[in-house]
Order: sequence, then structure tokens, then C-alpha cells
Amino acid sequence: MKARVHVMLKAGVLDPQGEAVRHALGAMGFDGVNGVRQGKVIELDLADGTGEAEVKAMCEKLLANTVIESYSIEMQSRETA
Amino acid sequence: MKARVHVMLKAGVLDPQGEAVRHALGAMGFDGVNGVRQGKVIELDLADGTGEAEVKAMCEKLLANTVIESYSIEMQSRETA
Repeated sequence: MKARVHVMLKAGVLDPQGEAVRHALGAMGFDGVNGVRQGKVIELDLADGTGEAEVKAMCEKLLANTVIESYSIEMQSRETA
Repeated sequence: MKARVHVMLKAGVLDPQGEAVRHALGAMGFDGVNGVRQGKVIELDLADGTGEAEVKAMCEKLLANTVIESYSIEMQSRETA
């Protein structure tokens, strides 16, 4: 089982990293970019029996700073190799 | 139009950040985690007419270091506000 967690700064929280990327893209001639937000993606390789509730607990306790960040969880069943 | 770009370290490239997260989760009592990879997610708010080809060029030139990182692009049509 795999889980993918997205952690993004909440709307309204200044994102200097995204702002720097937007500026750099503009300087490189990419004009069609109105805004950029940068976040983290964390891919967890889970043992069998570890469910979404546990991943949620990981997010609350460690992976996201819920004061300024929001997170979303995508569970993916294991693909056959 | 929005685009979401995932940038992950390629398989085989050491990911100390993910390793640190895995270790911390273990220390906090989350035993069901076999592995963690951490990457970046970049959300681009694009002007109309900016397509996937242009986002790909942004990735190649700025957003990802293609020597050690792989990227994937998800285009999302604008939702009505």
C-alpha cells in the first residue's frame, strides 16, 4: 500500500518560494504564469494493515504544520510489479 | 488553467529528507512505514493559452534538475469559482 500526501501552504499564507519561482519563470521568458504555489509531496510506502487513519495521524503530528499548512492524502493500492 | 507538477528524486538517488521523515515516524511509534520519499509539488496558475508543452519546458529548464529528479505534469482545467 502506498500513500501520497500533499502538504501546501494555506491560502493567504505568503509563499516566498513559490513567488521566487514565479519571478524566475518570468525572467526566463515564460509569460503565461499568473501564480505559483510550492508545496511538498511525501510518498509513504506502508506495511499492510496501515490505513488512512494512521496516515492522517502522521500528518497531524509530524508531516504538516496545521497552523499554516493544509494536507491531502491519496491512498494507492499496491500495483503488481 | 492550472497545472500541478510533481518533482521527485529518481529511484536510486539517496533521499536524506525522506529518510529523516521515516526515522522520525518510527521514533514516534508509527511502525507501519517501510519507506518515505519526499519531493516537491508546484502548482502553476496559467494564463489562457499556456499549454502542457510550455509547462514541460519550464520543468526542463527550471523546475526540475533532470539529472537526479523526475517530474510529472497534471493539467487541470479551471473550475468555475
